[in-house]
Amino acid sequence: MTPDIFSADTIIQNATFYNPFTSDWEETTLAIRDGMILGFGPEYNGRRVLDLKGRRIVPGLIDSHLHIESSLLTPAEYGRLVLSHGMTTVIADPHEIANVAGIAGIQAMIHDAERTPLDIFFMLPSCVPATPMDSAGATLLAGDLSPLLDNPRVIGLGEMMNVPGVLNDDPDVLAKLQLCNIIDGHAPMLSGALLDRYIRSGIQSDHECITREEALEKLRKGMYIFMREGAAARNLRDLIPIADCRTATRCAFATDDRHADMLDSAGSIDDCIRIAQDFGVELEVALRMATLTPAERFCLHDRGALAPGRIADFVVLEESDRFSVERVFKRGVEIRDIPYTRPAPLRTTFNCRLPEIDDLKINGAGPARVIGIIPGQITTRLEIHDVIGPNLPDTHSDILKAVVCDRYRAGGFGIGLVRGFGLAGGALAVSVSHDSHNIVALGAEDSEIILAIQAVASHNGAMVVVSHGRKTILPLPWGGIMSDQSYPEVVASLGELDDHARLLGAIENPFMYLSFLALTVIPELRLTERGLFDNTSFTRTSLFIE
Amino acid sequence: MTPDIFSADTIIQNATFYNPFTSDWEETTLAIRDGMILGFGPEYNGRRVLDLKGRRIVPGLIDSHLHIESSLLTPAEYGRLVLSHGMTTVIADPHEIANVAGIAGIQAMIHDAERTPLDIFFMLPSCVPATPMDSAGATLLAGDLSPLLDNPRVIGLGEMMNVPGVLNDDPDVLAKLQLCNIIDGHAPMLSGALLDRYIRSGIQSDHECITREEALEKLRKGMYIFMREGAAARNLRDLIPIADCRTATRCAFATDDRHADMLDSAGSIDDCIRIAQDFGVELEVALRMATLTPAERFCLHDRGALAPGRIADFVVLEESDRFSVERVFKRGVEIRDIPYTRPAPLRTTFNCRLPEIDDLKINGAGPARVIGIIPGQITTRLEIHDVIGPNLPDTHSDILKAVVCDRYRAGGFGIGLVRGFGLAGGALAVSVSHDSHNIVALGAEDSEIILAIQAVASHNGAMVVVSHGRKTILPLPWGGIMSDQSYPEVVASLGELDDHARLLGAIENPFMYLSFLALTVIPELRLTERGLFDNTSFTRTSLFIE
Repeated sequence: MTPDIFSADTIIQNATFYNPFTSDWEETTLAIRDGMILGFGPEYNGRRVLDLKGRRIVPGLIDSHLHIESSLLTPAEYGRLVLSHGMTTVIADPHEIANVAGIAGIQAMIHDAERTPLDIFFMLPSCVPATPMDSAGATLLAGDLSPLLDNPRVIGLGEMMNVPGVLNDDPDVLAKLQLCNIIDGHAPMLSGALLDRYIRSGIQSDHECITREEALEKLRKGMYIFMREGAAARNLRDLIPIADCRTATRCAFATDDRHADMLDSAGSIDDCIRIAQDFGVELEVALRMATLTPAERFCLHDRGALAPGRIADFVVLEESDRFSVERVFKRGVEIRDIPYTRPAPLRTTFNCRLPEIDDLKINGAGPARVIGIIPGQITTRLEIHDVIGPNLPDTHSDILKAVVCDRYRAGGFGIGLVRGFGLAGGALAVSVSHDSHNIVALGAEDSEIILAIQAVASHNGAMVVVSHGRKTILPLPWGGIMSDQSYPEVVASLGELDDHARLLGAIENPFMYLSFLALTVIPELRLTERGLFDNTSFTRTSLFIE
Repeated sequence: MTPDIFSADTIIQNATFYNPFTSDWEETTLAIRDGMILGFGPEYNGRRVLDLKGRRIVPGLIDSHLHIESSLLTPAEYGRLVLSHGMTTVIADPHEIANVAGIAGIQAMIHDAERTPLDIFFMLPSCVPATPMDSAGATLLAGDLSPLLDNPRVIGLGEMMNVPGVLNDDPDVLAKLQLCNIIDGHAPMLSGALLDRYIRSGIQSDHECITREEALEKLRKGMYIFMREGAAARNLRDLIPIADCRTATRCAFATDDRHADMLDSAGSIDDCIRIAQDFGVELEVALRMATLTPAERFCLHDRGALAPGRIADFVVLEESDRFSVERVFKRGVEIRDIPYTRPAPLRTTFNCRLPEIDDLKINGAGPARVIGIIPGQITTRLEIHDVIGPNLPDTHSDILKAVVCDRYRAGGFGIGLVRGFGLAGGALAVSVSHDSHNIVALGAEDSEIILAIQAVASHNGAMVVVSHGRKTILPLPWGGIMSDQSYPEVVASLGELDDHARLLGAIENPFMYLSFLALTVIPELRLTERGLFDNTSFTRTSLFIE
């Protein structure tokens, strides 16, 4: 027997380890060599000995589903931010960048992801464009996606949102489902025999559950439930009651969409664990969901637990009842003070036919379809209001103008009305607009709306607030949807944008509502570059009622 | 959407289903089509409707580790027997037949297994011969095993018993470990840094745990624990206390070695579930261990639960608190009255240099090493007794003669002494002798020993009791270690053999002790075709103390 069976490079002693196989804690000594766990106990010797003074240690945290693009940071910078929150592995679905820049965009993400110690795995984005009615920067069929599987970082098929395509045996959907053994789903409110059919096609998870009953049905039918707590959609508190020692092996956490400021202030999966604790879930159950369960789901058998032969990814907790990360180790090396470095660029052009001031004039008067904002939701209401075109935008009735402008093919723009934004002056615009990421703008004054859109286009992507000569801007040069700056700079800019918008009277989180205004697949009334869209009848519609 | 989304061929209604994802019960309706579960609920229609009148239904049971050869039945007949006990999938390690007949033997097993509805999966037998000191009918290196992986029924590497080979990086062991992603272990009493090293080599399970502490250590280090309850080795009651809602996802049941009579009277995994219940384990925990956990461990994602898209293997329970199988369905078809059919033969020759009466004479007197039987154990004690050679066998002191005769290469035989068998006359012999399966015999009279050995050899394999002209025999023509008869016939013969042996004064289960007498890898004193073997010093030894 070779003598180096007992020879480690690092010994972690005087610590209490969470074990997800038994879901309990054990005080022992951990031996690490070359970034891998050798084993446990007193037989090992090692050059470097770390005395953890009784601290608790858990395996590195795993995010089961997210879109890095939504953070507004590039992958390496995303890593730099979330590592400090205990994240060591994340499963990213790059459909945002894919919608903008196709395969080249995905490859740029994968390439930048190699620059961070965070292990970022990617799923093939299965729905680009999101629906057959969308047109963005790319269309990716099964044959376009399959070469990406050569990369070991690409591990499955991402959220299959095209539920009708699954149920109707759409040939491209079928071809995509054949590409991978690991397939994530996206099927809000799907139940009964249609859900059964969806599952029979091989789809194994869902992160869109809203109610406990919905989650239980999917769980019982064999789906992994990723409890999603994002920026816009916060379902964790409603779903967490189903998590217990039995179901923890089939449930995980997902951040889905979180901006850099929410990641920085609230956290990532560490935040989900704290919320679970706040809602009465045992820490051991939450930890199981944050570590071994997602590792098992994605067949990443080299992680998710601190066990012989697995990667030495672990987190040292602060001495506190409430889960809090003190130190993070990735492959046995402590993560500390990673400096920001600028990513390689991902320049995409903005090919826009921008509106001029006369284009925003609304002639006519009478009952009009208005997009009604629902506070705290990304769904909207189709409201009918009596309006007089030339009087709009009307800050007294809070009925403002919105514009979505095609950025890909100079295809023009659509104009609509929105109630509930609260803006008393100025305008907002952004080129993050799910899922096609055209330019979306909203304002209390036509001239300001024009300026805002122009600013976004001239920067080849940005988030901007304008009001009477004052402009607050966060450029998004990476594909037009992400910043290439450091996360502290992005967080600061987001704060300035929010401050400026607030000063103008806008509701909280104005850019959140703005960035979902064009999402045709959710109710009720939406605006696209081709005009208003009625989700209920699933057709285009006109501003004025005929 | 195609209308047949709702169209089943079989509807199971008025039943309560165990769900292993939530480990609870749900009253609902199950829809099946073409042997697959469509889904649940009232939306389905079906030609055939089964009203289960409130019965409970569980997924078909799975045995995580066994040797079909130990049942003495061929695979199809094994299936016919255990299906009625609720078994629908078993994971078999064919190392017994491999030791006797090499690759041809394994292929005969796989071929016969296709004749039963029971799904029999096979592991590559990793240790043929069992140790470098054994010589049997075959030596299987990594290159010999790998072609078997072409068969989809072959799903992993079987119990890696060669612990020193693992720890010392034996090249053939390393090559075998590279063949498969799924690797079972066999590491009794291995712990600490050596266990860590064993696990780091990729070995994922163990079924040899004897104590709770041993099982907990292996469980914590990421091994699946197969709680083994066989004929000789019954560890379940000692280990079952570690099974709970958290660990049930990492623990399963294994029957390992059970003869046809034990399978027929006690059962298979159904028996393990009942034992678990007797020891205070919740039925839901035991069911999780008997269904979804082994399915997950072996990556058989099409079974282990009743869920859309999975195989319709299920068991209807009797109305009783104690787990009891009433009806079994395999791929949606009820298993009833499968007739016995004779298997294709697997003839192997017995190439023996049989002992003659003078060969059994023991000259000399004085202290001699005697194999001491320990009731209920397959381990033996090395005892020293003062003997007078010509007076042996000596039924008064219960010191009898044992013989192991090479069946492969006419290599001769070894002679030893055994205390504790109780036989007052006659002799027993059998060609099931772990792991090399030579002929092993034991008797109170030299002439009867000779007759018994001759009977086994002349039948090319058998189990026999002889005494003064009376002979009870169960031929084992399949490879010399299995019967080709129906299980009722085999059970009846086993009963007759036991009766005859009991009449002669033998302890209970005499053939069990006999069949392990030659197993050199376990303590303390053993007998092989080359003579006595001292497991403690791991060397051959002499009868008389020098």
